[in-house]
Amino acid sequence: MLVEETLPNWLLKRAYLTPDRIALIFNNKKWTFKQLKEDVISTAKKLHFAGVQKGDRVAVLLKNHPNTVMIIHALQLLGCEAVLLNIRLQEKELLFQITDSEVKFLITEEELLPNKINFHSHLPNAILINEQIQDLKEKEFEYVTEFRKNAVCTIMYTSGTTGFPKGVLQTYGNHWSSAIGNILNLGLQENDAWLTAVPLFHISGYSILIRSVLYGIPVILYDKFDEKRINQDLIAGKATIVSVVTAMLQRLIDNLGEREYHPALRCFLLGGGPAPVTLLKACKSKGIPVFQSYGMTETSSQIVTLSPEDSLEKIGSAGKPLFLSEVKIITDNKIAKPMEIGEIVVKGPNVTIGYYKREETNEKSFTRDGWFYTGDVGYMDEEGFLFVIDRRSDLIISGGENIYPAEVENVIQTHPGILEAAVVGITDEKWGQIPYGIFVEKDGWHVEEQELQKLCEEQLAKFKVPKKWLKTTNLPKTASNKIMRRRLREMIENNEWG
Amino acid sequence: MLVEETLPNWLLKRAYLTPDRIALIFNNKKWTFKQLKEDVISTAKKLHFAGVQKGDRVAVLLKNHPNTVMIIHALQLLGCEAVLLNIRLQEKELLFQITDSEVKFLITEEELLPNKINFHSHLPNAILINEQIQDLKEKEFEYVTEFRKNAVCTIMYTSGTTGFPKGVLQTYGNHWSSAIGNILNLGLQENDAWLTAVPLFHISGYSILIRSVLYGIPVILYDKFDEKRINQDLIAGKATIVSVVTAMLQRLIDNLGEREYHPALRCFLLGGGPAPVTLLKACKSKGIPVFQSYGMTETSSQIVTLSPEDSLEKIGSAGKPLFLSEVKIITDNKIAKPMEIGEIVVKGPNVTIGYYKREETNEKSFTRDGWFYTGDVGYMDEEGFLFVIDRRSDLIISGGENIYPAEVENVIQTHPGILEAAVVGITDEKWGQIPYGIFVEKDGWHVEEQELQKLCEEQLAKFKVPKKWLKTTNLPKTASNKIMRRRLREMIENNEWG
Repeated sequence: MLVEETLPNWLLKRAYLTPDRIALIFNNKKWTFKQLKEDVISTAKKLHFAGVQKGDRVAVLLKNHPNTVMIIHALQLLGCEAVLLNIRLQEKELLFQITDSEVKFLITEEELLPNKINFHSHLPNAILINEQIQDLKEKEFEYVTEFRKNAVCTIMYTSGTTGFPKGVLQTYGNHWSSAIGNILNLGLQENDAWLTAVPLFHISGYSILIRSVLYGIPVILYDKFDEKRINQDLIAGKATIVSVVTAMLQRLIDNLGEREYHPALRCFLLGGGPAPVTLLKACKSKGIPVFQSYGMTETSSQIVTLSPEDSLEKIGSAGKPLFLSEVKIITDNKIAKPMEIGEIVVKGPNVTIGYYKREETNEKSFTRDGWFYTGDVGYMDEEGFLFVIDRRSDLIISGGENIYPAEVENVIQTHPGILEAAVVGITDEKWGQIPYGIFVEKDGWHVEEQELQKLCEEQLAKFKVPKKWLKTTNLPKTASNKIMRRRLREMIENNEWG
Repeated sequence: MLVEETLPNWLLKRAYLTPDRIALIFNNKKWTFKQLKEDVISTAKKLHFAGVQKGDRVAVLLKNHPNTVMIIHALQLLGCEAVLLNIRLQEKELLFQITDSEVKFLITEEELLPNKINFHSHLPNAILINEQIQDLKEKEFEYVTEFRKNAVCTIMYTSGTTGFPKGVLQTYGNHWSSAIGNILNLGLQENDAWLTAVPLFHISGYSILIRSVLYGIPVILYDKFDEKRINQDLIAGKATIVSVVTAMLQRLIDNLGEREYHPALRCFLLGGGPAPVTLLKACKSKGIPVFQSYGMTETSSQIVTLSPEDSLEKIGSAGKPLFLSEVKIITDNKIAKPMEIGEIVVKGPNVTIGYYKREETNEKSFTRDGWFYTGDVGYMDEEGFLFVIDRRSDLIISGGENIYPAEVENVIQTHPGILEAAVVGITDEKWGQIPYGIFVEKDGWHVEEQELQKLCEEQLAKFKVPKKWLKTTNLPKTASNKIMRRRLREMIENNEWG
């Protein structure tokens, strides 16, 4: 008989195994795993008092701070699915995700609420404000001491080709497998400490919280990215692993100057899109250990990573799949030969079980035997190292945030004077890429850039709004009349633009 | 729908991920993971040529040497279940295990064959001699590239209360979970290397082979325990982890004298029965990191281990359960309070799925929700550290080998002049324990010690034969007329013996 595997509640187990190790560091405050557990239990009891119950789905709209850590663990302890919302999203975007995911509660904070939305009409009596939670009474409940591997732990939204956000279902098994795959690649040292300046609402940050309790190592949490302070920590040897996106790494290296990192720093885990080779080479020449990786929300963080011995030798490659995961390149419905370019297809216990309520997309994206078609383009070399050439569907990655062109184009096209529009990512030294908006007016219309700018700012997170606008009379198209975004990008980057 | 989880073939995956890392060191010879894979594939093809096929069950009777490593991995690659036989067993013991497990083949070596048995009558045309395998031709076969977690990987025999050996079924999932539990406790460093002088046919040695390919670290293999050579390696910093039983640790420390181990040596993983506190204290005073552990064949090696920070503080404790495993103490059918003594009951994905063809024992030993009653006696302290007081059913552990009194008593009682007999383990500085035989003659009989000695030597592995014999006129009994072996032991150790 096949019985579903369970995992122990990782926070409770860790607090039992090594209660006195440091779990969390934020500014000058520290929590041991025992203290973390106590704070999480208290938070959970307060949430329960406010009405949150086992089986509820709860949206979380919070910045990086210790309470966010407590709330995330508390929801696991209560047996709630958490919908992690990006704090940079605009009202309309947030509303879509809250409605689509059918959450019963929203936990947010004062600073984020007024600018965003009056959620009350959508979630009457179900808004919990972080600053007010601590004043609530505590109500006892039955702790979830075992996690079912197939149970959904989190939902994170991602857009994709159509531009309509889809909720990625991440199970406890997904998060567990991701953490185990990571440890079999990176190892685990007694002095490990993971510096976390990436957002906890992204898989990059959320996954560190889980690794911390599984591995028994501290999270050094930052409320925002601050290269000066982070470099101080890294020079002092306070962290051994740091998760970064390209823009962060660049700023750290620029700020570092002639100083050197402490030898205890053993890994910059670099995710969130391709990195310029010049940056990687600069790091190599300084002996800074950068581990490129490849992953997405659907793979519960990295699925392909360079190993320690390859980190300085295979510059430009994302590495090899994690121990439990597989990667193949498909072209013309066949497995590609080495060096042959095709679609990156992945499999493994860290890969999402699917998108919430998107049956059609699920059928298209997943094969029967569990392979997930990423839509990204790349190749494998003879030794089996993956090289990612292009993110799916012209995905733009700016400062580690994903921008789906279609989503922004949909907004631009709501302007009555616009005939057609395209959004492309242009290479940028600081942000990796920045979005450009290219538009064609309808006959007899005159559209000002400022109008489009305003339109986008009202409806989209700031990072998605095009940083530059280009007006033209026609867009390059394929034979089947699809806009060739890649061609557009080349034209702009090569100064072929008329 | 619940789908059984699979694992990648760990050797193939490791050889793909880190082909150039060292996998195996024996004397002065080294294999990288790539070379190991090639040798294993070649071995598997030769075995296949000799008739070994997917689904076959194959007995392995081999000493520690590189070919044993190749054969063990080759059987996994072929999709065969391996029955690991203890090379110290006598003909009758081996025949029982081979017959009971219904193997199709036996792989052994010249040195072991003539002393043991003419297996040919039991396994016609199915004896493969290690020294001859290399001369066989190679025959292609389909590699097992994925292991089903619930598939049986190995069978190892253990005796238990009745004295009749039972085959413990260990699945791929059992071995995997054990390795993951270990890494979440011990960590994994880039320089790790695991010195292996314990037998590969025991779970203590076999489990290291699997960890090596999962973690990507070398096994430093010894064909026999040699404290001088091992100490040279450890002083030179060649190994970071060493698996030992008490007798080995004692001999190493004695031989070490005033010298010091290399600081790279971070863990003596101590299994195979309780260790004298004096030894542990001696190690502590020298700063030698000894990690006591508790486990058995049924738990696919350690299930409880001290963590690094507790290894010098909690002397005498076996530690806390591995991350995925659970331990409780049961007394009077209830969970015991802290410090209260009871039976040690364990659960986890590293615990065997059961004994082969022993339905009745399985029903007695396992609860419906997966708890396994070990028969061992111990308690937990207030912090949840396990202290093992007594191994199950008066199990004697001598030099890391298990001796079940009932098995030896059964042999003694085949002597026509014996009324009753008891075998107990007496504390011994060198071996931990040694077996004593106590017997009562039938009226009118006179039995010489030499007769019993000879009887046992003919039928039992040497380590099981009592090292001392005591004649008496009656044995201490319980109210229900069971022999009180523990009382006997106390009487002998306290010199109360008449």
